[in-house]
Amino acid sequence: MANLLDHIQPTLLMGPGPSCVYQEVYAAMAKPTLGHLDPYFIRIMDAIKVQLRTVMNTKNELTLPMSGTGSAGMETAFVNLVEKGDRVLVLINGVFGKRMQDVASRLGAEVDVLEFEWGTPVLPEVVAEHLKKSSYDIVGIIHAETSTGVRNPVQEIGDLVAKTGALYVVDCVTSLGGIPVTMDSWHCDVLYSGTQKCLSCPPGLSPVSFSDKALEKLKKRKTKVPNWYLDLSLIMNYWEGHTRAYHHTAPINMLYGLYQALDMVLAEGLPAVFKRHEEMHQLLAKGLENLGISFYVAPEYRLPQLNAVTIPAGVDEAAVRSRLLDEFHIEIGSGLGPLAGKIWRIGLMGHTARPENVERLLAALKKCL
Amino acid sequence: MANLLDHIQPTLLMGPGPSCVYQEVYAAMAKPTLGHLDPYFIRIMDAIKVQLRTVMNTKNELTLPMSGTGSAGMETAFVNLVEKGDRVLVLINGVFGKRMQDVASRLGAEVDVLEFEWGTPVLPEVVAEHLKKSSYDIVGIIHAETSTGVRNPVQEIGDLVAKTGALYVVDCVTSLGGIPVTMDSWHCDVLYSGTQKCLSCPPGLSPVSFSDKALEKLKKRKTKVPNWYLDLSLIMNYWEGHTRAYHHTAPINMLYGLYQALDMVLAEGLPAVFKRHEEMHQLLAKGLENLGISFYVAPEYRLPQLNAVTIPAGVDEAAVRSRLLDEFHIEIGSGLGPLAGKIWRIGLMGHTARPENVERLLAALKKCL
Repeated sequence: MANLLDHIQPTLLMGPGPSCVYQEVYAAMAKPTLGHLDPYFIRIMDAIKVQLRTVMNTKNELTLPMSGTGSAGMETAFVNLVEKGDRVLVLINGVFGKRMQDVASRLGAEVDVLEFEWGTPVLPEVVAEHLKKSSYDIVGIIHAETSTGVRNPVQEIGDLVAKTGALYVVDCVTSLGGIPVTMDSWHCDVLYSGTQKCLSCPPGLSPVSFSDKALEKLKKRKTKVPNWYLDLSLIMNYWEGHTRAYHHTAPINMLYGLYQALDMVLAEGLPAVFKRHEEMHQLLAKGLENLGISFYVAPEYRLPQLNAVTIPAGVDEAAVRSRLLDEFHIEIGSGLGPLAGKIWRIGLMGHTARPENVERLLAALKKCL
Repeated sequence: MANLLDHIQPTLLMGPGPSCVYQEVYAAMAKPTLGHLDPYFIRIMDAIKVQLRTVMNTKNELTLPMSGTGSAGMETAFVNLVEKGDRVLVLINGVFGKRMQDVASRLGAEVDVLEFEWGTPVLPEVVAEHLKKSSYDIVGIIHAETSTGVRNPVQEIGDLVAKTGALYVVDCVTSLGGIPVTMDSWHCDVLYSGTQKCLSCPPGLSPVSFSDKALEKLKKRKTKVPNWYLDLSLIMNYWEGHTRAYHHTAPINMLYGLYQALDMVLAEGLPAVFKRHEEMHQLLAKGLENLGISFYVAPEYRLPQLNAVTIPAGVDEAAVRSRLLDEFHIEIGSGLGPLAGKIWRIGLMGHTARPENVERLLAALKKCL
C-alpha cells in the first residue's frame, strides 16, 4: 500500500488551530530522542519552564507542559483542585466555557454558571453582583473564547475574584502568544494553554501554571487526585528538584518542538508578536470589509488571532470551505454548536499571522464567493 | 542564549524506553501539520486504526491511539470502565502492576490484589484458586512487566478470566511489537500500549483497543466518565463514522510518526520482528555471560526486549550508567522501587534490537566493569 504521508498537501492553516508551524519547530521535533531522565534532556525541561514563565508573566515555580493537548490542561486544572462538593463558578460565553462546566461537574464539583450571550464578553458587573451573594472555591473563565472570537475581561474578573478568596482558573489555550497574558497581575491561580495555537507548534502538549495558593489546595487535599496520569503532586517530582523521579515517559520530541517554538516567540519579542497579530487582524478586517463580510463580534472584544465572521446570506458555507481547502489549500474553521452554519472562524495565530497569508486567503475567498 | 537543541548528542537508547527511533519516523513527524478535521488527515487516522488492529490481532472496531503517553492508556482503560464500587482484581509482580492498583483505586474501585515475587511471573494456578472464591468486574495484568523483565502468562490468565464474566485488561506497553500480542485469542477486553517501546516511535501516544463487551460496559454506565479528556464515548465520535465530531485537537504530527512506525513494523512483518528481538536477546545474553553478568529472571519468563540483569558485586551501578552515557553515548536503565541498585534494565526494543547495537553495548560495558 502507498504511504499516505508521501502525499500530504502542505496547507495554510487559518482555522481555529492547529496553526502554521515554524520550519524550525518541525526540524526540532526530528532531533534524536533522548531518554526522559538523561541529564541533558532535564536541562531542556528546565529551560522550557523558564520560557513558559516568561510568556505567561508569572513567577510560579509550578509551571510546566502537561503530556496531552490543551483540553488535558483544562482537565489538569480541575482534577487537581476539585474535591467532591467544592463550589465552582464557571463564566460561560461559548463552547469552551461549556466544556469547563462539564469537566468540573464530572469531578464532583457543585457547579454554578453565569452564561452570557455567545459573541459577547463576560460582563464584570454581572459577576461582581453574583459574587456578593454566593461564595466559591474556584471561579473559571476562558480568556480567548475560540468558538466565538471573543476576548474576555480576565483582568477585571480577576480583581473581583481575588477579593473573595476563590481560586481563579483562566483558560489561555488560544490567547498565549497572541495577546498579552499576564498571569500574576490577573491574580490568576491556574492557567493552561495549548501548543497548536499562537505558539505555532503542533498539538500535543498543554503548558500549565499553578500559583502557590493553588498548590496549597492541592497539597491539602483529603483524597488523592482521582487521575494518576495528571496528578501534579507526582508530576512535579519529575519536573522539579535535584532528583527527578520517573512518573510517565515525557513526550520528548514534542517537548523539543515546544522549546523551539518558545525560543522563536521570545526571540521575536512578545510586544512585536502581539503587534504582528494586531496588524494582521486589521489587514484581514479591511479585506473582508471590501468583500462585504462582517464580523460577528463588536470591535472592542475581538480577538486578533481568531476572527469570527458572519457567513454572507445565500452562501453554502461548507462548499466554500471545501473549495478553499481543495483548490487553494487553505483551511478555515466552521462554527461550533449554535454557531454552526452561521459563522466562519479565521485564525491568524502565531506563524500564520503573516501578510502573505492574509492576502492569499482574501484572494481565494474572493474567487469562492 | 544558545539553542540547547543544537547540542543534542545522539544516544543509543538501550534502557526501558524510549527506544531508538527509525529515521523515517523522525521524517514523518516533520511533515506539514494538517487540520484535525481535514479529510486527508482522517484517511491517515483510519489507516492507523487498521494498522493497530493488525499488530494487536484484534477485530475490535474501537481501536485507536489516545492523546497521551502509555500511562494515559492505563488511565483510559480504568476511567472508562470503573464505576464507584466496581470490584477489580490486579495481578501484581512489579511497578506497573502497582500503578494499576493505584489508578483503579483512585477511581473508586474496590481493588483486591494478588502479589507475586518481583522477577517471577504471575502464577495461573494461584489466580484460578482465587477466582473460585471471589468475583470481579475487572481483572488487570501487565503483559511485559517493564520493571522486572518478566513476561506474564496472559493467555492462561485470560482463559481463566473468560470463565468468570469479568472484563480482562492487559497492559501491553512494552510488549506490543516486541513479542506476540494476540488480543482476541487472549479473551482480552481492553488492551493499551505506548509508542516509545517496541514500535520505535517517540513517546506521546497510547494505542488502546476495547472489545464489544468493554464498550457495552462503557455505554451502560450510570455516571459520566469522570474524565472528559479520556472519555471514549466522546472520542469515538471523532475517530469513527462518517461525520467526525471535534473532541480535542489530535496530536497530528505524533500520529504521522505512529503511522510511519507501524508501517515499518508491518513491512518487516511481525514474525520477522519477533525473531529479530529473540535473536538479539540471545546475542546479548551470550555476551553478558562472557562478562560474568547474570539475568535476574528465569529463562522461560524473560522478555527478549527488556533484560533485567543483576549488578555484579562491588560495582557502582550509577557510575557505570553515567560512564556509558557520557563516554559511549549509550543509555541503559536502573532498577525501580525495591530493585533500585540491584538490577540494570537493558532494552532491546524495536529499532534498538540490532546486532551492531548489542555489540556496541557489550564492548562499552566491558570497558566500564
